[in-house]
Amino acid sequence: MKKLVGSLKEAIKLCGLEDGMTVSFHHHLRNGDYVLNMVMDTIAELGYKEIKVAASAVFPVHEPLINHIKQGVVTQIDTNYMSGPVGEAISRGLMSNPVVFRTHGGRPRAIETGELPIDVAFIAAPSSDCYGNINGVDGPSACGSLGYAFPDAMHAEKVVVITDNLVNYPLTPISIDQTRVDYVVVVDSIGDPKGIVSGSTRITRDPVGLTIARYAAEVIEHSGLLNDGFSFQTGAGGASLAAAYYLKKFMKEKGITGSFGLGGITGYFVELLEEGLFKTLLDVQCFDLDAVRSIKANPNHQEISASFYANPESKGCAVDKLDIVILGATEIDTSFNVNVHTDSNGIIMGGSGGHSDTAAGSKLALIVAPLIRARLPVLVDRVLTITTPGDTVDVLVTERGISVNPKNEGLRERLTEAGLPVVDIHELKKKAEALTGKPNPIKTGGKVVAHVEYRDGRIIDTIKNTE
Amino acid sequence: MKKLVGSLKEAIKLCGLEDGMTVSFHHHLRNGDYVLNMVMDTIAELGYKEIKVAASAVFPVHEPLINHIKQGVVTQIDTNYMSGPVGEAISRGLMSNPVVFRTHGGRPRAIETGELPIDVAFIAAPSSDCYGNINGVDGPSACGSLGYAFPDAMHAEKVVVITDNLVNYPLTPISIDQTRVDYVVVVDSIGDPKGIVSGSTRITRDPVGLTIARYAAEVIEHSGLLNDGFSFQTGAGGASLAAAYYLKKFMKEKGITGSFGLGGITGYFVELLEEGLFKTLLDVQCFDLDAVRSIKANPNHQEISASFYANPESKGCAVDKLDIVILGATEIDTSFNVNVHTDSNGIIMGGSGGHSDTAAGSKLALIVAPLIRARLPVLVDRVLTITTPGDTVDVLVTERGISVNPKNEGLRERLTEAGLPVVDIHELKKKAEALTGKPNPIKTGGKVVAHVEYRDGRIIDTIKNTE
Repeated sequence: MKKLVGSLKEAIKLCGLEDGMTVSFHHHLRNGDYVLNMVMDTIAELGYKEIKVAASAVFPVHEPLINHIKQGVVTQIDTNYMSGPVGEAISRGLMSNPVVFRTHGGRPRAIETGELPIDVAFIAAPSSDCYGNINGVDGPSACGSLGYAFPDAMHAEKVVVITDNLVNYPLTPISIDQTRVDYVVVVDSIGDPKGIVSGSTRITRDPVGLTIARYAAEVIEHSGLLNDGFSFQTGAGGASLAAAYYLKKFMKEKGITGSFGLGGITGYFVELLEEGLFKTLLDVQCFDLDAVRSIKANPNHQEISASFYANPESKGCAVDKLDIVILGATEIDTSFNVNVHTDSNGIIMGGSGGHSDTAAGSKLALIVAPLIRARLPVLVDRVLTITTPGDTVDVLVTERGISVNPKNEGLRERLTEAGLPVVDIHELKKKAEALTGKPNPIKTGGKVVAHVEYRDGRIIDTIKNTE
Repeated sequence: MKKLVGSLKEAIKLCGLEDGMTVSFHHHLRNGDYVLNMVMDTIAELGYKEIKVAASAVFPVHEPLINHIKQGVVTQIDTNYMSGPVGEAISRGLMSNPVVFRTHGGRPRAIETGELPIDVAFIAAPSSDCYGNINGVDGPSACGSLGYAFPDAMHAEKVVVITDNLVNYPLTPISIDQTRVDYVVVVDSIGDPKGIVSGSTRITRDPVGLTIARYAAEVIEHSGLLNDGFSFQTGAGGASLAAAYYLKKFMKEKGITGSFGLGGITGYFVELLEEGLFKTLLDVQCFDLDAVRSIKANPNHQEISASFYANPESKGCAVDKLDIVILGATEIDTSFNVNVHTDSNGIIMGGSGGHSDTAAGSKLALIVAPLIRARLPVLVDRVLTITTPGDTVDVLVTERGISVNPKNEGLRERLTEAGLPVVDIHELKKKAEALTGKPNPIKTGGKVVAHVEYRDGRIIDTIKNTE
């Protein structure tokens, strides 16, 4: 069985790709990814039409998709996150078919249940052997975990590995193995290392961000959950990392050791692991070079699949074992619904990723956000787009006050007793509006450009075009 | 989601087991296994009937199965290997339904294609957390690789983990993960370490065995395959290990480094890895404590699934990448067909395991056997049971001569030129019979007690009862 083929063109033909089929991509190379573009360019060149692109995320680097959409090569997009020109163009009404936004847990659910069948998965692989054993930890384009590529590899009809680092058989360690891979194509480069991982993620130095971070850590301190064996997830944003910095101080002071850190992993989490403050990292995606180094070398830094991370219909996902998560928001409303899909002009600039999965699974979901951003309140009557339903959000932390979801009365009392600036969310909104005035509502058009699908498959919102 | 249940009984009920269903087991605990018996005893106690047992192997320790068969609790067995009292009783006609013998590659093929659907897989786990992340490398019953359990975990309707070493969530490293496991049951002990792994496997000291081993190594030396990057598999038998000992000498003399060692792994192979003579071990099963220690610590010692190892219908199995395999035989015939299922009395005492898979996949399949064993020739006109078809066997090596399959004319010439005692297989048989006389044919009865299914699903032989 010969899997190594001479070109992408040959691999695509061997896979039997046809008009109307679905091709998939993972996003571990993020804004450094060359693979989605090279595959879609080749598919366009070969004359295919009406392809559905199921990419776990779409980044600014994927701007060439716009032309493929205009040419009818791509007519559907299914993704968990979308930033940059593609999202902007779609918001302006580029596509006839609405984008389907899923979550990091909803995507593997849809793939495994057959709701999102994949005909050909194209998997960018930082290392591969000739038989398609791959990992993400070695090679010039090393990105660490390949977590989001697992469901595609497990369930796609055909799987094509694209690598710039072909090694002798057999590759070790193996992330996705030869039993899942049909063809291997070697290319000059699968990505730009500068776009794949940042050199190192850093905590914020902005005083507003630091205040939010300190409050967030104090909320956790008084939540009743900061005990030995607690588990934690935080994003790579500056304020989230700063919150982790304060949390670390509290853990050291109190002699508390956590069990696992989850999700996208940063060097900051690696430090917590290496200092013994957490016992394990469960890593679906590495955000920086320190995380890549660690996942390669440390047996307690475990690569996990997207299904393991967050699929609500797998036999058990890690978000359900999560105590505390810190999340961001572009908007949050007085019912605690959070929007991370659209910006203050209504334009698509993100997506859930694991936002709604972790909020639903964790015991304590904290939203950290500046109360006022670019002279607009973050807190509104009704978010334009619901990414994460308010009943899964526990606390909003801003620099001007902390609001607790009314469902958590006990927590509200504890935080108030601890002297934290707890404010009713409607009061907090008034505070913001006193400073900024009440912003004009965002104007959207009449065309549905995207559906927001919750992790369980329900459509919980739609996104309209902007004018 | 609570997976940890109080007893095996409870787990079985929660799984919805019904009469006529199929339960499965893996055999990494070998003759030390407590799990198959404790599960089947509980199933019997609960009053179930007509259960099919799909066990990757059956050992002497599983003698209690006989009573479950007599009581009608177990009415079908599907396995790759069977030694001890169960095989003897079946040979005497114990069961109404013939046993289905598969190969280590054929079993995952049958599971994945749906030919062998599993209702409940019971997986003995040397370590597990409360969510069913398991590995075989830690705990009092550590057995190393869990390779044969992977297809069961991936495809069974329900999966029950049985462990004697419950650790905090999340376990690392993870072999089979939480997304595949429904219930976890903690028991006092899953096995007897003395039966699970031998302290250390040793090469033979028997002069006949050493002669065979030296010839085998010389056949390899002159095969044209002993080049940098060659791959190799050998069993844990004394003569096979001795052949590896001589091979190692040749490799060192010639400065040759192999790529991978495959299959069941012994401490001897670990030595080759640690001395840099092989770069990687692909391990579906650890035979001794050295192998267990190595797979836990050495990233180049990779656990692989049964499908990765040998499934001919996966997208690529490792036996197809294998250069050389050394295998045993209880009988071999002048058409090079090999029997490792039945003994000289026709009684079931083994099975293919990976025998026919590796013979089919490798470039050079060597059978090593003493020409005369227990005063009977190993070489016969026609084996009683075909385990491995002769067209996949390349060379027979005995202490009294080497026979090359006529399909390998070039090899025969090279070995002859090298001065090895190459003999036509019919001549070799005459030699044996000159010493032992022509043995009486084995008498079998009229009842089919087992089917031998080849790796691709074809029935290639049947086994009759003995009288």
